[in-house]
Amino acid sequence: MSRTIRFSKAGGPEVLEFVDTEVPEPGPTEVRIKVKAIGINRAESMWRTDVYIEPVKFPAGLGYEAAGIVDAVGKDVSGFAPGDKVNVIPSFSMNQYFTYGEVIVVPDYAVVKHPESLSFAEAASVWMMFVTAYGALIEDAKVTKGDFVIVPAASSSVGLAAIQLANYAGATSIALTRQSGKKAQLLDAGAAHVVVTDETDLVQEIMRITDGKGARVAFDPVGGPTFAKLISALSFQGIAYIYGALSEGVTPLPVLEMIAKVITVKAHNIWLTSGDETRRKAAVEFVLKGLESGALKPVIDRTFAFDEIVDVHRYLETNGQFGKIVVTV
Amino acid sequence: MSRTIRFSKAGGPEVLEFVDTEVPEPGPTEVRIKVKAIGINRAESMWRTDVYIEPVKFPAGLGYEAAGIVDAVGKDVSGFAPGDKVNVIPSFSMNQYFTYGEVIVVPDYAVVKHPESLSFAEAASVWMMFVTAYGALIEDAKVTKGDFVIVPAASSSVGLAAIQLANYAGATSIALTRQSGKKAQLLDAGAAHVVVTDETDLVQEIMRITDGKGARVAFDPVGGPTFAKLISALSFQGIAYIYGALSEGVTPLPVLEMIAKVITVKAHNIWLTSGDETRRKAAVEFVLKGLESGALKPVIDRTFAFDEIVDVHRYLETNGQFGKIVVTV
Repeated sequence: MSRTIRFSKAGGPEVLEFVDTEVPEPGPTEVRIKVKAIGINRAESMWRTDVYIEPVKFPAGLGYEAAGIVDAVGKDVSGFAPGDKVNVIPSFSMNQYFTYGEVIVVPDYAVVKHPESLSFAEAASVWMMFVTAYGALIEDAKVTKGDFVIVPAASSSVGLAAIQLANYAGATSIALTRQSGKKAQLLDAGAAHVVVTDETDLVQEIMRITDGKGARVAFDPVGGPTFAKLISALSFQGIAYIYGALSEGVTPLPVLEMIAKVITVKAHNIWLTSGDETRRKAAVEFVLKGLESGALKPVIDRTFAFDEIVDVHRYLETNGQFGKIVVTV
Repeated sequence: MSRTIRFSKAGGPEVLEFVDTEVPEPGPTEVRIKVKAIGINRAESMWRTDVYIEPVKFPAGLGYEAAGIVDAVGKDVSGFAPGDKVNVIPSFSMNQYFTYGEVIVVPDYAVVKHPESLSFAEAASVWMMFVTAYGALIEDAKVTKGDFVIVPAASSSVGLAAIQLANYAGATSIALTRQSGKKAQLLDAGAAHVVVTDETDLVQEIMRITDGKGARVAFDPVGGPTFAKLISALSFQGIAYIYGALSEGVTPLPVLEMIAKVITVKAHNIWLTSGDETRRKAAVEFVLKGLESGALKPVIDRTFAFDEIVDVHRYLETNGQFGKIVVTV
């Protein structure tokens, strides 16, 4: 038996329920895992309220990330055996698979070897943040020395991953944060520059930092009215990635300014990388190398117990964290 | 002496003035041309009202396109001699050069050989329309058989060029027009499908045409509230080019839908192609080949005399034309 989190209607954190489930044998290409830690993402909160990028089929499970020990493997699975320490990388629809449970079944393509240098809690925290940022900054934009990278919502786990990846690639990170409270922490976390957007004109400040040229890349999970300012802070032929919609406001495009600067706006998600075998392998290899070298590091805000899952979602929605929330099982 | 159009303040068509000018000798890399025909563009109307992509330095000239006969060449110019029939391709700032005049001086990189099969009026009409659409559809999106291309404002010269180029590349063009009045004309002009947006739900109709897949490319000079519908009508990983801001409304992005479909929005202008020597040459060669083969054809709405330039701009702003407005000198 496994205690599994399910919800049968969209709503606040209180819709999450513990259900005792008989977890089935894994199918031919599936892996069953005894979960030790679960990484928590904003995506799961949007999923729970059914405003995510695909509609929920109720009753549903949730969760994209986990670390644990292989319990059983399907007959066509190679490379993993019971007893192996593994992680789950986000690469499936939560209508099909999920990770919020004591024992879970996931597809083999979502399973990666556990990085030995990391604890289970750390390993449950790294894949969404680093692969999401890697897909935009490394795979697509190929950021390098001389590039400036604007990182809004910099204290989020993906924001912190973007700072680390920009630095790792030799680029200069510019972290955006609303209030000055997190400034020192962001500098400690590796941000080359921190712009406090409630206190400074972000466009002016980024133009100052970039000697009037603007940044080549922005990597934004917020959207809303600030998005146009990010575009104003970009250089000629700059790229604004948008991978989330945290703002409740509309996101207007400054069309003429974009035409003059030949700006590209790219919607981005992790599945473009994690859903393709070759790209997923390259991403995993890149992140593992970065973790081993110490250039990339997990940043855990707080660890909760599995029993506290309703409180976990409440805490997630305060948007106050610095880095990743992890649940240990 | 040359009669040249100048304006010394932003405003309506009536700010345009005829000024008698002594046109100087061309500089080392410039060409002086006796103008026979001028192509008229929406860009010049935005320029005249000073809402274009760069601010006007008054007093200013205007115009991007012309066809005529070389009058004199600078000492470093090769490939052109007095008496040659030539065209001017848009590739400069109107703060530096312009084409609304009886005799004009332009940089040598903006001068191309006149296509023998075309009249002066036709040749003055083709470069902005075909090179703008070529840069997005052929150079960047590489549209090909199996692709659907949405063309809003399809009766504009660039829209008609996009229809021709999509067909030339083996793709399927979907022309958008507000009212049914231009439907037959658009089908005659080569549109594979015409969607009348005041009468039909454009998203539903494009989904029907594309068997529910959506179109891979949209090529839009309008923006505004309809832009989000274009994105809804795109396929997974579709691209929406935006090369104008004809709509007066804001252009909100449907962020979550874009993330789910991994949509790219690319601001586009002709200078990206015409401002680079290698790309400009490839574009000119491509368009000349298309014109020679008959696959690409000028579409002239109406021809005016040079004296009527104020009326030309008034007519331009009615947005009623089908194809290009040309002025003969």
